Amino acid sequence: MLTTETIKTRSRNEWVDITALVEAAVVKSGIKDGIVVVFCPHTTAGISINENADPTVPRDLTRKMSELIPQHDDYDHSEGNSDSHLKSSLVGAQETVIISNGKLLLGTWQSIYFCEFDGPRSRKIHIKVV
Amino acid sequence: MLTTETIKTRSRNEWVDITALVEAAVVKSGIKDGIVVVFCPHTTAGISINENADPTVPRDLTRKMSELIPQHDDYDHSEGNSDSHLKSSLVGAQETVIISNGKLLLGTWQSIYFCEFDGPRSRKIHIKVV
Amino acid sequence: MLTTETIKTRSRNEWVDITALVEAAVVKSGIKDGIVVVFCPHTTAGISINENADPTVPRDLTRKMSELIPQHDDYDHSEGNSDSHLKSSLVGAQETVIISNGKLLLGTWQSIYFCEFDGPRSRKIHIKVV
Repeated sequence: MLTTETIKTRSRNEWVDITALVEAAVVKSGIKDGIVVVFCPHTTAGISINENADPTVPRDLTRKMSELIPQHDDYDHSEGNSDSHLKSSLVGAQETVIISNGKLLLGTWQSIYFCEFDGPRSRKIHIKVV
Repeated sequence: MLTTETIKTRSRNEWVDITALVEAAVVKSGIKDGIVVVFCPHTTAGISINENADPTVPRDLTRKMSELIPQHDDYDHSEGNSDSHLKSSLVGAQETVIISNGKLLLGTWQSIYFCEFDGPRSRKIHIKVV
Repeated sequence: MLTTETIKTRSRNEWVDITALVEAAVVKSGIKDGIVVVFCPHTTAGISINENADPTVPRDLTRKMSELIPQHDDYDHSEGNSDSHLKSSLVGAQETVIISNGKLLLGTWQSIYFCEFDGPRSRKIHIKVV
């Protein structure tokens, strides 16, 4: 079953917790054991799994990534977002999560994040339960 | 269905658009809804999804990655390609893409790239439609 | 079929070859053609595929990553492991590998690694054969 959801981001760099959206898609599918593919159809954003407990974690990740890959640098691409494209390829466009007994098999501290690298924008994610 | 394709790269660092090869494998499989796993069996290359419209994007990504991870550095590995191995692990060996109505569910600007980090070489990719 | 395995790491940064554990899970499942998802349920570790032949490769990767993303930096997260969280998101929490004729379709030099970025610890991995 395929679900598409819309996400509104509020900053140029922002990690949005989308675990509840993925869980809802899994519940709706009725599938108890399998996998779910979470896919970002944008080239200046990505999907990642990281800690959900302390908001300083996504903030530290965001800041350190921007220090390594600054927005303004010796880039040729004229849209001024080559940094966003590189972050997208490093974090990756997709995550596959295991479903067990109807639930996402995530670790205690894990959430699935939509990683915005060129916001604020309205974005989409695709969720495929297999 | 499993398909293996050969790719010839022409530079040490080069992103080759392989979307058409993956699309052809999906069409050949006859599968209308599912997922496709694109896998790179090499340890100095990878698979990534990024923009296909402006050729400056893969060029900027390549250059910035090589600036962060230079070829010549304080490495122990005697083959002189530790940079290629690290880039491979950061970009990743594989991408999973959703198939919907017989088509790859990619965003408007997305292509699937074979990322060469130690070319030029003859390389293989495996495409598994599920 | 779902298998969970325990791994003991011995250093803060360490790449542990887990290919044999994944192979054993595939054999036990009896599945000859399909995919296997290897998932790390921790937010300061990851899963990656890289070279298994020369131990200097994981050592070089570990050192270069720590040079780019140092443990001590201008981080807000009070646990002192923001570097580990960022490495986890860059390497990724999961890899999907193709199964062909009952075997992992890996390249000659490829192994699957559990990447410890905040050890030493006792860790878990989940292996789902589809």
